[in-house]
This record gives sequence, C-alpha cells and structure tokens, in this order.
Amino acid sequence: MKAPRTSSGQSRLHFIDSLDKLLADGPAAESTLLIYDEALATHVKGFTKFAKNYLHRAAFASGEKLKDIREFPKHVETLVHAAEDLSPRSMTVLAMGGGSIGDFAGFFASVYKRGVRLVHVPSTWLAAIDSSHGGKTALNVGGAKNQIGTFYPSSDTYLCRDLLLNQPSNLVADAMGELVKIAIIDGTKWVSELEKETTSTLPERLWKYLKPAIESKLKVVARDPKETRGDRQLLNLGHTLGHVLESAHGWSHGYSIGQGIYFALEMSEAIGILKSRERVEKLLVANGIVKSPPKKKLSRTHAKTLLLADKKRAGEGLVTFLAIEKIGRVHRVDLHVEDLLDEARRTGWIA
Amino acid sequence: MKAPRTSSGQSRLHFIDSLDKLLADGPAAESTLLIYDEALATHVKGFTKFAKNYLHRAAFASGEKLKDIREFPKHVETLVHAAEDLSPRSMTVLAMGGGSIGDFAGFFASVYKRGVRLVHVPSTWLAAIDSSHGGKTALNVGGAKNQIGTFYPSSDTYLCRDLLLNQPSNLVADAMGELVKIAIIDGTKWVSELEKETTSTLPERLWKYLKPAIESKLKVVARDPKETRGDRQLLNLGHTLGHVLESAHGWSHGYSIGQGIYFALEMSEAIGILKSRERVEKLLVANGIVKSPPKKKLSRTHAKTLLLADKKRAGEGLVTFLAIEKIGRVHRVDLHVEDLLDEARRTGWIA
Repeated sequence: MKAPRTSSGQSRLHFIDSLDKLLADGPAAESTLLIYDEALATHVKGFTKFAKNYLHRAAFASGEKLKDIREFPKHVETLVHAAEDLSPRSMTVLAMGGGSIGDFAGFFASVYKRGVRLVHVPSTWLAAIDSSHGGKTALNVGGAKNQIGTFYPSSDTYLCRDLLLNQPSNLVADAMGELVKIAIIDGTKWVSELEKETTSTLPERLWKYLKPAIESKLKVVARDPKETRGDRQLLNLGHTLGHVLESAHGWSHGYSIGQGIYFALEMSEAIGILKSRERVEKLLVANGIVKSPPKKKLSRTHAKTLLLADKKRAGEGLVTFLAIEKIGRVHRVDLHVEDLLDEARRTGWIA
Repeated sequence: MKAPRTSSGQSRLHFIDSLDKLLADGPAAESTLLIYDEALATHVKGFTKFAKNYLHRAAFASGEKLKDIREFPKHVETLVHAAEDLSPRSMTVLAMGGGSIGDFAGFFASVYKRGVRLVHVPSTWLAAIDSSHGGKTALNVGGAKNQIGTFYPSSDTYLCRDLLLNQPSNLVADAMGELVKIAIIDGTKWVSELEKETTSTLPERLWKYLKPAIESKLKVVARDPKETRGDRQLLNLGHTLGHVLESAHGWSHGYSIGQGIYFALEMSEAIGILKSRERVEKLLVANGIVKSPPKKKLSRTHAKTLLLADKKRAGEGLVTFLAIEKIGRVHRVDLHVEDLLDEARRTGWIA
C-alpha cells in the first residue's frame, strides 16, 4: 500500500525483545529496503547476520553530516539503485539507527516515488523515546539544522529491547533528559511511579517507561500534528537554552536538553510561575540530570544571536519559552530575550 | 497559514487577464518568495518591472537540469538565503514558469520548513493545462525522471492570459496533446464545442477551453489524489508510447504525448476496443496532432527496454495501457509488451 499513513502521528507501536521477532513479524524482508547505521555491525552482536536477511540494504555513517543537503544527491543515488527492483507500491523503508538515520531515512521514504511505507526501528534510547515518533523528518542546509523536511510518521515503529540495551552507555544519559521532559509535561500516574524509582538502573527505567513516555508525546503531537497550532511547542521544554548550549559547546542533544530543563526550572522560578521546585528538582537529579553550567561560558552576545536565530522567536526581541508550573503543568510564555539572558547569566550558564 | 492544503488537489483556480491583477489580488509581495524562469524577463514585456515588486526572489534557468538532484543542494542554499527574513508560517512560494520550474519550486515549497504555502502561476500552456494542477512535484535522480517528489497541490493557481499569450508559439503545439487527451477522457459538453471549432487559432482554443480542461483533470485527480487506486492512471492516455518516443528521440513532452495518443488510437483499434475512429481522429487532426512516425526509428529492443523500465509496468511482460473506446470512454487494459511492440512496428513508430 502506497503512503498509507496520515500525518497525524498515528504510528503503530510494537515492543519486542529481539531482532528475530522483527524479522518474523515486521515488514517482509524481500520487499524491504533496509537503511541502517553502519556502527550497529560493531555494537550489536549478530547484527551482520541479521542484516543479510535484507537483500536490499544500505549502511551509512550516522551523525549530522548524513543530514547535510550536500551529501543527499550521492546518498539518494545509492538508495535509488538499491531499491530499483522493488515496487514503490509494496515496498517498505526500514530505518534502523539513531536520530540522524531516522531523520534521513524518513525524509528519503517520504519523497522516494512521492512516498513509500516507512518503518522505524530506533537503535538509540534518544531515538526510541523521542525522534522516531511524531513524524518529523529533516535535512540540514548550509550548517542550519532541519531547514528542509517533511511530516511523515512511520506506519509502524518497533522498540527492540535487545537492540536498545546493546547501545553504548553514554547514550543512556542522552535519553534521560527527554524522559524527564515528557514526565514533567505529562504528570500522570506513570510519572508518580517514576518518582518512586530508587534502585533501578537508568536503562531499566528507560525500557520500563518507554511506552507511557512515547504515548504521552504522541498525545501532544496528535493535538497539533503539523505544528500549526502551537500545542506541539510544549515538547520544546528545555530546548530554548538547550539548543544554545548544544550549538555553542557541541554538547550532545540529549545532554543539552537536560541542562536546558534545569535552566527552565530556574527561569520559571524567577518569573514566579514555578510552584514546587523541590519535586521537579528531585525528579531531575534522581534521573542523572545534575546542574552543570560550563566552565568556559559563552558570551552574552553570542548567546543572544543563537537565541534569536532559533525558530522559537516569538516577535521583536521576544522568545517563546516553556515554563514549568509543576509536574503535569507547563506553560508557553513569551519572554524578552534580555530577561532570559539576565537569568542565564545569574545562574551561571552564560558569561 | 502553514501547509493549509489537503493532498486532494483542491487548489483554487483564478483566471486573470494580466500580471497587475496577480500583484493586486495574489499573495502579498512582502511575504512572498518568487521563484521564476529567468527567460520570462526576455519573453514577457514588463516582467522585470513586475518581478521587482518581490524583494525575495530567485531566477532559475528552466529545463530538466533544474530538476537534477545534484543541482538541488546549491539551489536550496540560494532559496533558504533568499527566504531567511520570511516567517515559514505566513510566507508563500510563488512559482512562475513552465513544468520544470513548477516541479522544482513545488518540491521546495513542500519541504522547506516542512511545508510552506505554494501558489502556481504557469507561464507555458503545457503547465497551464496540465503540470501545475494535481499536486505532483518532482526531481530527477541519476538521469531517471521524477524519482523523488511529493504530492503537494498549490493553495491557489493563477492562469494569466497575458502571460500565456506571450509564450513562444512552439509551446502552443506542446499543449494541444494534453487538451485533446483530456477531451477524449472527458467527453462532456465542452468537448462537443471544441469539436465544432474551425476558424479559431490554437492559442485562442487553449485559453477558451483551459477552465473545463483543468476542471476535468482535477475531477480525475480527486478520485485518486495519491495515485493509490489507479483511477488517476486514466491521465496516462498516450503516455505509454509517448514516453518511449520522448526518451528515444528527445522530442518535447507535449509533442510526444500527442503522437502517443495517435498510437493509442491505432492500438485500441487493433485490440477491438475502438468504436468510432473517425470522430477521434478528426479531433486529433483538427487540433494539430498529425500522425508523424519518425524517419529514423528506434529498434524494437530499445523500445522494449524503455517500455519495461517505465512505471506503468503491470507485471511480468505486461504493460498497463490506456485504450480509447470513444470520446468520453477510455479503459485501462494490461497488454503483453510484445503485442504492443508488434502494433508499434506495424504502424511505423518503431523499427
């Protein structure tokens, strides 16, 4: 079936234990084009043997360079060649990797023959909890991230325990920021349970709360699938300063967002919106998000340029900011960029 | 308003006399990115002055090279730069040109910031009657046409009399194949009127029947907006052999389709589907479509390769073909490629 998805983020979710299950229950290998992160062959035991089940496949190095529009023609030629025996109406693009692989393969699936079926199998915790859901695909143009892209949710997304638990441990911390972000926005029953976790490891928590966290994100996305109404902006909690830190210091996205949420806590207190700092701060710290302003801070001027270049600009000198009232209540507010910079300086994030 | 269109081909059509009307009633110049064919400045009196009303603009050379994926990164960088002061939520991409400009600018509009408003102003008759309607956008990959693209109808399409009547006269013949094609598929009242035309010039006829012809195409598109059901394949009448001739001889698309319709007439007679050859043939000839098999014919082997490479392949050795019963009745039939080649040889189209 060609392009059978709506743009409303209604992907089917499947929680599976191993790649064998994907092979058995997922899209038929003979009509699938597997696009995967070449690093999986190194990290994941048995991956090379698994990949060989797919005669039509292409491996790529993950990272922002994969999303560079200048690289796209070469990659598209590789993929069009790899897919030439497949029928556009019955084929599936199976994207296995982290965020950059998902963004790239998702974009390809959305434009190849004007759209073919897409299935995501995120291999990093960050992709599993965040980027593989909601249907955003993206490429970068001239160093600016995500300038072009589509809204193209997968028809199915497989969350595979073995694959995720095989990921390098530094990628675990990356995802905790997103887990905590969605927990703060949502605030329903599973969040109370998460607040009680003490002895479980972070990967155990990620696997345990993956389902409610994804469903919570998709609930927000369903209210605003194409980001036309602003509802979806709730998901930008922690992103305002987070993106600035990510650009300026080259920190990973997940870590930057964690620090950004910490700053959102400070800022929300400064503007009098925050009600229960203690509970929010406890949730952050218990999940590995510890306030860590950089030693070598970026200048106020540099921070201001980055803030105003971001798409969350609300108007002349204003920035849209997600402020925390309490767990389960987040508000969109327009702040003067100078007020934001004042607080970032006071709390040590910028010079 | 961001990406406000559905994919059902429901663009609003506006028939206007001059570019002044577009400036007055079309998208606000200050929030518009004008993407246009650089040749318009030469062909169309007053165009340079008109274009200067749009501060955000970029001119491109039209043709298949514009649609080459290898050229896309460079062009996107130009366009992202030209649009950087515009808000994605309120901006409009205004595409002015023929088919290649429309395919390229439409694709850009569909992916820039994940989709911005698109308005088409076709400047060639072929684009005015066909390619600017129905929402298909496309780029070429490695010499193969339209490998990537999107379904992205314009919010509005302006048909401008002055602009179209200013086009070089060789482009008129190009569009007649499409006018006759849609007339044969449709067969309603306006077609009877077209059959009675004797003294009007071809450009006069194109302008007179543009509205019913477009509406007829959009009626077919609306039944199958994403080409999932096959209904839309009716619009491929004349394309089976037409595409082969276009590839092999480098003929223009419109001319090739005209010849392809003539061949469809022969083939439909050979398989016993055609009922009234005389009336169809008269409509073709009266509108400038005269049977003109090439002097230097392509080989049967070459023709077979091209036929089977085309997306209208229906199965092993089969080709989907649009056969004419009479004006107003066209049928989709699966033919053996060898039968098709036999008839093409018998009627002199191939060696």
